[in-house]
Amino acid sequence: MTQRIHLRPMDAAFLLAETRSTPVHVAGLQVFKVPDGAPPHFVSKLYAYMRGFPVTAEPFNYQLDGRLTGKLLPAWEVRDDVDLDYHFRYSALPHPGGERELGILVSRLHSVHMDLTRPQWEIHLIEGLQGNRFAIYVKLHHALVDGTAAMRLMTLSNDPEDGFAPPIWAADLGEEFSHRGSGGSLLGRAYEVLQKELAGLPSLTRGVARSTKGLLGLPERDDLTSIGEAPRTILNVKIGGQRRVATQIADLARIKAIGRAAGGTVNDVVLAACGGALRRYLSALGKLPDRSLIASVPVALMREERGASGNAVSSFLSRLGTDIADPRQRFEEIKRSSEAGKSHLKEMTEAAVANYTLMLAGPILLTGLLPDLGTLAPPLFNLIISNVPGPRTRLRFHGAEMEAFFPVSQIGQGQALNITVISYADHLAFGLVACRDSVPSMQRLAVALGEAIDELEATFLPPAPEKAAPGRRKQARSPRSRSGAAAGKSPQRSKRAKASRPRS
Amino acid sequence: MTQRIHLRPMDAAFLLAETRSTPVHVAGLQVFKVPDGAPPHFVSKLYAYMRGFPVTAEPFNYQLDGRLTGKLLPAWEVRDDVDLDYHFRYSALPHPGGERELGILVSRLHSVHMDLTRPQWEIHLIEGLQGNRFAIYVKLHHALVDGTAAMRLMTLSNDPEDGFAPPIWAADLGEEFSHRGSGGSLLGRAYEVLQKELAGLPSLTRGVARSTKGLLGLPERDDLTSIGEAPRTILNVKIGGQRRVATQIADLARIKAIGRAAGGTVNDVVLAACGGALRRYLSALGKLPDRSLIASVPVALMREERGASGNAVSSFLSRLGTDIADPRQRFEEIKRSSEAGKSHLKEMTEAAVANYTLMLAGPILLTGLLPDLGTLAPPLFNLIISNVPGPRTRLRFHGAEMEAFFPVSQIGQGQALNITVISYADHLAFGLVACRDSVPSMQRLAVALGEAIDELEATFLPPAPEKAAPGRRKQARSPRSRSGAAAGKSPQRSKRAKASRPRS
Repeated sequence: MTQRIHLRPMDAAFLLAETRSTPVHVAGLQVFKVPDGAPPHFVSKLYAYMRGFPVTAEPFNYQLDGRLTGKLLPAWEVRDDVDLDYHFRYSALPHPGGERELGILVSRLHSVHMDLTRPQWEIHLIEGLQGNRFAIYVKLHHALVDGTAAMRLMTLSNDPEDGFAPPIWAADLGEEFSHRGSGGSLLGRAYEVLQKELAGLPSLTRGVARSTKGLLGLPERDDLTSIGEAPRTILNVKIGGQRRVATQIADLARIKAIGRAAGGTVNDVVLAACGGALRRYLSALGKLPDRSLIASVPVALMREERGASGNAVSSFLSRLGTDIADPRQRFEEIKRSSEAGKSHLKEMTEAAVANYTLMLAGPILLTGLLPDLGTLAPPLFNLIISNVPGPRTRLRFHGAEMEAFFPVSQIGQGQALNITVISYADHLAFGLVACRDSVPSMQRLAVALGEAIDELEATFLPPAPEKAAPGRRKQARSPRSRSGAAAGKSPQRSKRAKASRPRS
Repeated sequence: MTQRIHLRPMDAAFLLAETRSTPVHVAGLQVFKVPDGAPPHFVSKLYAYMRGFPVTAEPFNYQLDGRLTGKLLPAWEVRDDVDLDYHFRYSALPHPGGERELGILVSRLHSVHMDLTRPQWEIHLIEGLQGNRFAIYVKLHHALVDGTAAMRLMTLSNDPEDGFAPPIWAADLGEEFSHRGSGGSLLGRAYEVLQKELAGLPSLTRGVARSTKGLLGLPERDDLTSIGEAPRTILNVKIGGQRRVATQIADLARIKAIGRAAGGTVNDVVLAACGGALRRYLSALGKLPDRSLIASVPVALMREERGASGNAVSSFLSRLGTDIADPRQRFEEIKRSSEAGKSHLKEMTEAAVANYTLMLAGPILLTGLLPDLGTLAPPLFNLIISNVPGPRTRLRFHGAEMEAFFPVSQIGQGQALNITVISYADHLAFGLVACRDSVPSMQRLAVALGEAIDELEATFLPPAPEKAAPGRRKQARSPRSRSGAAAGKSPQRSKRAKASRPRS
């Protein structure tokens, strides 16, 4: 009746890492416009329609094998009796139903653990959003899908054909999302390294970590961020179980124009925006460290076979230039550091990448066993900044156009903040997730992100009154970002209107 | 800055008992009518008003001492920095906002653990209930207040004077709700017994339990329910962490009239209604055991000092007559069994009561340490049925009349169903809480409760066409109960209208 599928080792490691304070799930928040001319109670009808489909698609019917304690040798069972009403939920926002109320609800939903005795996903249909809009919040355990796969899962349900497709849990997703027969990968070997790390925890302390570059055969180079250089910050503390979620939006064309003018990539501009925002935010709190904050930037690894989903990622470290006041110099530092990190990841052997990945992931993954490790050992990096490519064209779901798509990621012990960015059509959506207790005034950080982008634009695209570039309107420092959602605080939305900018 | 107050032993035991599957909190659901002539967005304004008060009242500012692991020697800290937005939450029901949507939301809220690093309470203001109504769901950890004290906490906030009193967390409740200096009680000594139970777990198995009556010095009497006589049922299984909540309402005058006619108390009628309902429900599932189900019925113990709140309760066991088809014989059996249980509790010495209380509570309290105990050992009883006296007069909250007040209690390992009853003004409100996985079709059980009351009425108050009692209208089997809220299933509200019955 039920089938068993063994968890891939890295996926199993995400289960090991789960504690009350560090639920290991990722999520997405999609905002939709109710179609013009839709019947009354459109969202309610959509709920009833979707609820009519039983759960038949992998991995939505995967459940941890209940015969085990679920921790030591986990396996998935494929179930044909999934209790859909538990996983698919219909909610509403209270008056006045603005971005603030949406942010509060999503912060709460993101703070709740998933029940490990059931398939590890939730989809919340949320009505009552101002402007005749609704939202969908999708939550998935990291053991089920990695961030990139999750992205595809969440957008797959947006049917560009405007038709009434079955919901994602009843769609035939093909082999890509199956976990069958993909246990012997690079990360399978990497798991052995994790087991060695478990036996050799002291090697994660600063003294040993300093020599890790040599250990892994990495050349010494100034631009390459060393394992031991991240400062201690207010972001690297013991976290609790409650979350705050905040969001920010930036026009993609504008980010691309800044990148071109500065000689960097979109990712460099994203890191520079984060670096500038963190410098502002920490300065205002009087908590800016002397040395630059270090970001861990995940990158997708090549997959060895088409049918593999799972957590096939590594990371490189990049300085964020938070110690540099000049935005141009800060950008240059970030660009050099990020290039060095990426190129060394390419130069490493497959085995060295596995070692390096687990060394970086280790402290987070191990916190399930040793909750204080993430705060006792010095941080290997200060926060994770993840930049995920999203859908390029505007999507619709049952006729409703998707306005925005915010990532809502996870944090870990000693890592109280995560910034994840997804591109969608003509903009980048920033999703900020933080520990409710450790990171004060999250909304200010979201606003600072917008200000940092304004600063980058003023630096690299200064207004040229006499010779404006063709096709670009003359606009100096006029903001094209808006921060939304909420951090459980009063809304501090940018009062300046969002100006559209033609793609150039 | 902060003060420390040691937890009373029984309260500490409730913390020990907490696991992912068995959150140890109790709750109440109050339904209000928006006052006639209230301004638009009355509920939103009420939320804004209440949110203006910081948390200053005990025990709403009690937090477990973070310096301890929180489990071994717990103490409360009195905090002056409680994060109100975490505890006081504003929510809304989706379309159509009926009892079903309310029940689904409350089932979800009741399934979520409270964060042990914060004060152990939540108050949810819920708008969007059909008929211009709103609801308040209050959740409290059992270590903070016992059920009876919780009741008073929840009704205290209903100001009969129709004024705008401060919310409960900012009200001066007096010493009654303080936990200061009340550690040396009967239950303090009882805690020593619990520690002995920990060392002597085998004594909880059936073989030894059979002799417990003699051990405790109880006389052998046929009517007295023996420790070993509860059958195994579908209610006595390993439970998961998700809950279903269902409700039922019965006219108090009608229950009293049945009791008078049958020569029993209101509590006897409540137990008979539950017995009749469980017989119907289990028969329909083909799961009715040959022997009668046994209920554990909590009773409040005398408090030795005025300032004591806490869990000052014991319980007696009562047969529910589920093995008897005839409603009159079933009632007689319940009445005899319940009287024997109560009178023996009175005859016992104080120390014997403490032993007896902990023997009954032991398996539930110990499940935090040994999760399977509750299912491996035979059940000492099949479910807890608790009958709590509530407010006698109609209450208002900021001008809004309270229509109903449902208890939402807790369940434990091996105890998948709880029925708690509260009286309010002219009715009894039944709150049923069950494990989402173990108890199918909760709503059917709520409907069966109404049918069982109809049956009791038909038995003891038969229609007398020729000589109707003065002041009582001629009505045969016309239903005067209604089941509401939800069990995550389609609403199955009684289609027959509620008929009012004059008090006689």
